[in-house]
Amino acid sequence: MVNWTTIDKHAKEWLKEAGKRIVSSFVTAPEIMTKTNPDDLVTNIDQETEQFFTEKIRETFSSHRILGEEGFGDELTKVSGIIWIIDPIDGTTNFVHQQRNFMISIGIYEDGEPRLGYVYDVVHQDLYYAKSGEGAYWNDVKLSLLKEVPVEKALIGINSTWLISNRLIDPRETLIPLVNDARGTRSYGSAALEFVYVATGRLDAYITMRLSPWDFAGGKIIVEEVGGKVSNLRGEPLNILEKNPIVVAKPGLHEKIIQKYLSKGFS
Amino acid sequence: MVNWTTIDKHAKEWLKEAGKRIVSSFVTAPEIMTKTNPDDLVTNIDQETEQFFTEKIRETFSSHRILGEEGFGDELTKVSGIIWIIDPIDGTTNFVHQQRNFMISIGIYEDGEPRLGYVYDVVHQDLYYAKSGEGAYWNDVKLSLLKEVPVEKALIGINSTWLISNRLIDPRETLIPLVNDARGTRSYGSAALEFVYVATGRLDAYITMRLSPWDFAGGKIIVEEVGGKVSNLRGEPLNILEKNPIVVAKPGLHEKIIQKYLSKGFS
Repeated sequence: MVNWTTIDKHAKEWLKEAGKRIVSSFVTAPEIMTKTNPDDLVTNIDQETEQFFTEKIRETFSSHRILGEEGFGDELTKVSGIIWIIDPIDGTTNFVHQQRNFMISIGIYEDGEPRLGYVYDVVHQDLYYAKSGEGAYWNDVKLSLLKEVPVEKALIGINSTWLISNRLIDPRETLIPLVNDARGTRSYGSAALEFVYVATGRLDAYITMRLSPWDFAGGKIIVEEVGGKVSNLRGEPLNILEKNPIVVAKPGLHEKIIQKYLSKGFS
Repeated sequence: MVNWTTIDKHAKEWLKEAGKRIVSSFVTAPEIMTKTNPDDLVTNIDQETEQFFTEKIRETFSSHRILGEEGFGDELTKVSGIIWIIDPIDGTTNFVHQQRNFMISIGIYEDGEPRLGYVYDVVHQDLYYAKSGEGAYWNDVKLSLLKEVPVEKALIGINSTWLISNRLIDPRETLIPLVNDARGTRSYGSAALEFVYVATGRLDAYITMRLSPWDFAGGKIIVEEVGGKVSNLRGEPLNILEKNPIVVAKPGLHEKIIQKYLSKGFS
């Protein structure tokens, strides 16, 4: 029998400790490296934070498996067992440029089913978390269930990149009409932040064309616990071990965005 | 002889007091009204906050004039004398949807020249301010002078609206190539916030097609005190009593954005 209360307690302790280490790193400039794409930054702090989590998890829960952005986890092809999906710094460009607007994200799944989700804003010490079936919290505040909202009153998280010609979607019949109909758009540069903005009602929807498991694993659990919907562009469930295009939204609005706008992009 | 130290002291006191009132208003939902455009929201809190400032200023500095978003100030056609340009809540849509990411903005000008600028994040109690010729501050921290950065490493604040067909600019030869060349874009929905993000180096530039004087009056003084450049799309100085399209950026990057990208939009 898995003791989820113990797992939750450890996860929260490690998040707080990792957060303190990250904030104390601000006094020295991070070492910035780029990955395959020159705009895809990574720093020593991303790597050290992921190592911190993988060491703690392996020491404490030796049977759990780990999928991490920086590669200190395991090679996973199946969802069986307990899996921690970790992004040590979601929003590395923000971390480098702003020293804010980045999150630690953790989603814990059992046989592919959501169990515990965490998104931690280390700078403001704001912890968003959820235990599947028991609701979601922003620090000590239980979050309300999300209510329906029409497109014309919706504030949508979407990056400009997807509204100009790109390889993943033709925005002319899909995203551009949606943005024209909505109240406004915002873009924060951290998927985990944008998921919890939907969970707290600060955004009504968030749309992006490609997220890795570590970008969405924690936020998905939190959004779903308050009645929000998370799917790919066709409304299908996400594959939690692969890259997915993603629509996150309030109930009702989610279906509307897919049916009235995104479905125009499929032949 | 104008005593700017006294004016500064009062402005800061009033900002703190107005901030407390706004935060305490969160317990009740604001009354939301729309202006001419259904996406242009205003609340009773915007109005009450502007009234608070106009009353304080008129009591204390009877010769000063006031230009405020909500119309409790004066009708101004000339820049002579001391003018307080006030946005009681810059980012009202954020205030309504998010209860964060909005700012009180104040710029104080004398005969059209910048003297004191304030942008106050009331939720996080972060005050950004500048006294012309004496530098800019984020709370107690003096901000560094901004350094040059190439377009390909720049994080640019720009809203999606301007990248799709709109009445104010044709983005095809101007903003779209810029966004394609830059490292990334962000959009926060508060001009005052985006100005201070440039002043603190969290953004490298911010571009928008239409701001009213109260949207930019405070932020402009702060950005210029750290060596940032603020102009219209042709690189010309702003008219502080009228609406302007605006480019705010680090030195060097500002000229590059205008010469290489925006100038393609002019015949």
